[in-house]
Amino acid sequence: MTYGKAPTTPRSTLVITAHAGDFVWRAGGAIALAASRGEKVTIACLTYGERGESAKAWREGKSLEEIKEIRRAEAEAAASTLGARVRFLDAGDYPLLVTQELTDQLVRIYRDTQPDVVLTHPLDDPYNGDHPAAARMALDARVLAQAIGYPSEGEIIGAPPVFFFEPHQPEMCGFQPEVLLDITPVWETKRKAMECLAAQQHLWDYYTDLGKRRGVQLKRNAGPNLGLPHATYGEAYMRPYPQVTEELA
Amino acid sequence: MTYGKAPTTPRSTLVITAHAGDFVWRAGGAIALAASRGEKVTIACLTYGERGESAKAWREGKSLEEIKEIRRAEAEAAASTLGARVRFLDAGDYPLLVTQELTDQLVRIYRDTQPDVVLTHPLDDPYNGDHPAAARMALDARVLAQAIGYPSEGEIIGAPPVFFFEPHQPEMCGFQPEVLLDITPVWETKRKAMECLAAQQHLWDYYTDLGKRRGVQLKRNAGPNLGLPHATYGEAYMRPYPQVTEELA
Amino acid sequence: MTYGKAPTTPRSTLVITAHAGDFVWRAGGAIALAASRGEKVTIACLTYGERGESAKAWREGKSLEEIKEIRRAEAEAAASTLGARVRFLDAGDYPLLVTQELTDQLVRIYRDTQPDVVLTHPLDDPYNGDHPAAARMALDARVLAQAIGYPSEGEIIGAPPVFFFEPHQPEMCGFQPEVLLDITPVWETKRKAMECLAAQQHLWDYYTDLGKRRGVQLKRNAGPNLGLPHATYGEAYMRPYPQVTEELA
Amino acid sequence: MTYGKAPTTPRSTLVITAHAGDFVWRAGGAIALAASRGEKVTIACLTYGERGESAKAWREGKSLEEIKEIRRAEAEAAASTLGARVRFLDAGDYPLLVTQELTDQLVRIYRDTQPDVVLTHPLDDPYNGDHPAAARMALDARVLAQAIGYPSEGEIIGAPPVFFFEPHQPEMCGFQPEVLLDITPVWETKRKAMECLAAQQHLWDYYTDLGKRRGVQLKRNAGPNLGLPHATYGEAYMRPYPQVTEELA
Amino acid sequence: MTYGKAPTTPRSTLVITAHAGDFVWRAGGAIALAASRGEKVTIACLTYGERGESAKAWREGKSLEEIKEIRRAEAEAAASTLGARVRFLDAGDYPLLVTQELTDQLVRIYRDTQPDVVLTHPLDDPYNGDHPAAARMALDARVLAQAIGYPSEGEIIGAPPVFFFEPHQPEMCGFQPEVLLDITPVWETKRKAMECLAAQQHLWDYYTDLGKRRGVQLKRNAGPNLGLPHATYGEAYMRPYPQVTEELA
Amino acid sequence: MTYGKAPTTPRSTLVITAHAGDFVWRAGGAIALAASRGEKVTIACLTYGERGESAKAWREGKSLEEIKEIRRAEAEAAASTLGARVRFLDAGDYPLLVTQELTDQLVRIYRDTQPDVVLTHPLDDPYNGDHPAAARMALDARVLAQAIGYPSEGEIIGAPPVFFFEPHQPEMCGFQPEVLLDITPVWETKRKAMECLAAQQHLWDYYTDLGKRRGVQLKRNAGPNLGLPHATYGEAYMRPYPQVTEELA
Repeated sequence: MTYGKAPTTPRSTLVITAHAGDFVWRAGGAIALAASRGEKVTIACLTYGERGESAKAWREGKSLEEIKEIRRAEAEAAASTLGARVRFLDAGDYPLLVTQELTDQLVRIYRDTQPDVVLTHPLDDPYNGDHPAAARMALDARVLAQAIGYPSEGEIIGAPPVFFFEPHQPEMCGFQPEVLLDITPVWETKRKAMECLAAQQHLWDYYTDLGKRRGVQLKRNAGPNLGLPHATYGEAYMRPYPQVTEELA
Repeated sequence: MTYGKAPTTPRSTLVITAHAGDFVWRAGGAIALAASRGEKVTIACLTYGERGESAKAWREGKSLEEIKEIRRAEAEAAASTLGARVRFLDAGDYPLLVTQELTDQLVRIYRDTQPDVVLTHPLDDPYNGDHPAAARMALDARVLAQAIGYPSEGEIIGAPPVFFFEPHQPEMCGFQPEVLLDITPVWETKRKAMECLAAQQHLWDYYTDLGKRRGVQLKRNAGPNLGLPHATYGEAYMRPYPQVTEELA
Repeated sequence: MTYGKAPTTPRSTLVITAHAGDFVWRAGGAIALAASRGEKVTIACLTYGERGESAKAWREGKSLEEIKEIRRAEAEAAASTLGARVRFLDAGDYPLLVTQELTDQLVRIYRDTQPDVVLTHPLDDPYNGDHPAAARMALDARVLAQAIGYPSEGEIIGAPPVFFFEPHQPEMCGFQPEVLLDITPVWETKRKAMECLAAQQHLWDYYTDLGKRRGVQLKRNAGPNLGLPHATYGEAYMRPYPQVTEELA
Repeated sequence: MTYGKAPTTPRSTLVITAHAGDFVWRAGGAIALAASRGEKVTIACLTYGERGESAKAWREGKSLEEIKEIRRAEAEAAASTLGARVRFLDAGDYPLLVTQELTDQLVRIYRDTQPDVVLTHPLDDPYNGDHPAAARMALDARVLAQAIGYPSEGEIIGAPPVFFFEPHQPEMCGFQPEVLLDITPVWETKRKAMECLAAQQHLWDYYTDLGKRRGVQLKRNAGPNLGLPHATYGEAYMRPYPQVTEELA
Repeated sequence: MTYGKAPTTPRSTLVITAHAGDFVWRAGGAIALAASRGEKVTIACLTYGERGESAKAWREGKSLEEIKEIRRAEAEAAASTLGARVRFLDAGDYPLLVTQELTDQLVRIYRDTQPDVVLTHPLDDPYNGDHPAAARMALDARVLAQAIGYPSEGEIIGAPPVFFFEPHQPEMCGFQPEVLLDITPVWETKRKAMECLAAQQHLWDYYTDLGKRRGVQLKRNAGPNLGLPHATYGEAYMRPYPQVTEELA
Repeated sequence: MTYGKAPTTPRSTLVITAHAGDFVWRAGGAIALAASRGEKVTIACLTYGERGESAKAWREGKSLEEIKEIRRAEAEAAASTLGARVRFLDAGDYPLLVTQELTDQLVRIYRDTQPDVVLTHPLDDPYNGDHPAAARMALDARVLAQAIGYPSEGEIIGAPPVFFFEPHQPEMCGFQPEVLLDITPVWETKRKAMECLAAQQHLWDYYTDLGKRRGVQLKRNAGPNLGLPHATYGEAYMRPYPQVTEELA
């Protein structure tokens, strides 16, 4: 028995993000790794990031609908590259508001996808209020989805572990790497997914550098004896809930 | 490949504690689990706890040497019950002082035991200054033991993960459960080891209650779907360094 | 003069909780102690905990109204056992939402009961969002009830001290025991009140163990010279506002 | 029974400070209050503050011995005004070093004075390292003095509550007022004691202003209904250990 | 080039506060300094503080409209004394609610005033929930006003630095002085502006004492060599965002 | 008047580091900037980093003295490239111990160099205990050097601001960027200085990436209106003491 693992079905990962691009930069490696193991990954994008993260398109004079369409297409291409499926909730960004209706929609997605692992934003981000709003609803919905008394369709869920992925300016968001995930085997896939996001080309290198940086730290924390390759790539995560395990390692 | 695991030798766990009894109450489950998997566990007791944790013996008029002998015998019996080996450094307690000599002795033990996992006290304890002193030296020695330039015998070590075990009054020591270890399979062994510590009988039930309490929380965090037994026992740990992993779970 | 004490009337305690059972597990000792001194204790239950804390009843196929009725009856029996009066606001749980209307109802209760002491949940609980919501409104209403300009019936209140009672998983909620209350004299009463909550029998022993645990710590912090009985029971509280006093003790 | 109070002897307060003047500015009110109730107050000054807090005397060309003598005389006059007795350990300041010998001297003072209450500096002060050094030894010695196995003269002590008094720049030292003590009844006494410290006249008004400021906050936290006088004076304290009590108030 | 300074236009400061008096007590020095340099200062008062900060007027039987009028007149006089312009949003206080409509109004003010510096309340205040509500909206609106995709009139803004001014009970609000501003040159102006607030005369001396206190700390942190005058006055601020600079000083 | 600036002499910067290479990676930009303004920069290297940061040389079989000589030569070349002067205290690393003797040597350097600005390591680093040890002594010595009563040669110093430079794994050291320094004008110089450290070639790119990363964040925090160049480089610093200023900016 391994905690959080059901014996027969493929494992399920649920990624809840504020904007269409977030899952690529911040959790693309985890998603690709899970997919590469034959697991199911569902990404719930609460908005397209049409107002807050599409400055270039606005400057080019694109309309709101055009921008949403571009962002949707890019995100779908990236998700497909990573091996995941993306659902758009189109809740409107900048600001993304915390509402009971949207939280309820997430409850339904939790019950539908029965996740073994949940990924979302950390709870603080002084540069973008949509990220904490998404995280707040992701956590609230997870708790509600566990309650048999909560009136929503589908089976209640267990208590899947939650991981916060890394924000753009981690130190300003109270982000501290608690888990360093080795994404070297899927690095090329993550890079390709990033390249699907044509409008944010300046971030390709930024997140490549970050992948290397976390890889260096991963090697430092794993110890030099493991024979990890020179070019190790990593992603950093936080755990808001304790790890449950049968073995200290 | 699993991080921190060397392929051929049995894994090695090093437990560094201030007093002779600490490893039983606080990490007895982890030790017994590791031993039950055929792994090697070494306990480095910096002192016998002869002054600070032997009030009963002092009231009975025992001499310092007698008390040290009693504590040694009890600790050896408990270690043997758990399946571990204990080394006494006899550095003198209450206060246990941080010294370069003692830190150096620990470097030698690190290099000798080549641990894959390290367990020690957390860095704060307003009720007992020996615990942070032991932890401070355990962490310092681990870093020194990694350096090829540090002049001590033996091979340098890697960067084994460190776990802080739970102090007596966790909330007063900044202790937050980051890892909940399921010790149900070895619970009876831990209980027997506790019963080796005859002078502290009042703690047997205290730590049995704690084991149940952490077990309840473990079940709550693992989710109700896993079919964990009603009587689940747990131990809580903190991680001062990030977890390195190939899979989020 | 003792701070917070009005000379002629019996003292008044106001307990504000999210769900019908919370006051029993977490503050039953404080309530029974106050009642045993002839003081008035009012419990404001914002919800019955009908959705989030009644899993057993839901599994038995009970209806929402049946469950609310069961919870109400249990809570009234427990309150009566403790010597307190309970008011239900039936605001709906899971989620309990922070609203201005509900806050305003609490202002009225503050002004009506003129509390000398206020007890409520702490402001964080990653396992149950209703608890922080209740605490948020309890604190906001307390401030509003102090303002002569706030349009509500009744006399304005002073600045009664607030105590946060202990959540189910204290370390995960930032809970640190700042006050240890000796509830030994009313322990049997608290136990009887717990036994009124038939549906949550698994918690009777959990909170008995916790009472013992906090009792052990109370004795540890009070010092061994006081001759406290072996079986001392305690409850832990936090103070979000500074203690005002005429004597350091 | 009141916690911490022995029935027959007068209560004993122990104040441990780094420099000769600290007890006046920071705890003069608490000392005078205790003395006014007929309690015994002992002040242990680890140094005279001869190097770090006597700039004026150095500029006037006084010798080290002269400065120590001046400081001693001033401190004795102030202590006498407050109703306390002062012991000088003359350990040398700037820097005051944490040593086992000095800690041991404090253990003896603990056992000798058998304090019901302990006052000392907080553990952080980026402007003066002597203050944390004194606090560190005050706390360590308190724990050692409780142990029957610690080899020092005198009876072991209980677990007297500890209060950290307010540093000069509280927000820079992590100081948060957890206890506001009403010192109005002894304000004139504290002012007179301050005026004994002739060399630091610029601090008389600074600490008078602080007394008023904490008085305003005390009234704000006590509530407007208590009829506290307009000119209320206060001192602020922190509690590193939980309060033990029989009643929430 | 100096960061945040546009070469030709006068610099613009935007102060966002909950109540009509806040800007005087807490940021009057910064406002007067900026005005004295010929810069433009705009104060956005979300409410008049008519319910929560006008107890005297309510006790005198004034009506809501009368109180608002009094507060408006006082605030305008004070702003004029300081050299600033004040805009009232009349959003209703006690409680001031966080709404999207009000946030949107602030976005418009940001775009209209194009601030180089923003001053507002810190994000925590257990004594007055209106202050954090104002700060929350001030920060959210600043982020929205930067986005070209956010549908509001006017030009988008840059990323002006934000300063939190000092709350009434700083230590209870997590306030730590990160910037000490020398307001000595404009002290008389600040004092005159405070005296415009006739109803809160008890605060004139409180904030004069605070000005002196921060002045003493400013001199302490600036070093004794600078020849600062004896009567130095200061104001303290926090920076939620990093300082951007060309020189460490 | 600008705070911290003496009118006639060139400004003086003092950099205190544990090992010979630290000043290059972490503060090379600040040093080069100061030098480029004609200021004096003195680097006090407490050790050569001969044991803890010279793994490659040890593996090549070099002797202790050879390694120290190599490190000295590299550091001198780098310092010279940056425009600074370096003093070696040769106190022995891994571990660097906090001693009164070494602190006293630093007092002398403070009084000798009369710094206007001080740069050192942050106070926590779980990967290398030498760094906090150096920082501890740097801060202690700065306080002692201010006291006229402290017996050391030279004039007392003022209270120069302190900046903590960025550690290798910032999030694990409690490091949060509080100041972002634009080092673009001297980037090439910093790169050349890094290339003087031949044995640590793997860090050249790591710290180039970090410079870019901090540059991106600098632009993000400065606002898009400033016309900063695409390739902006930055260094991040913390301030343990409040900034003292005449203007908020």
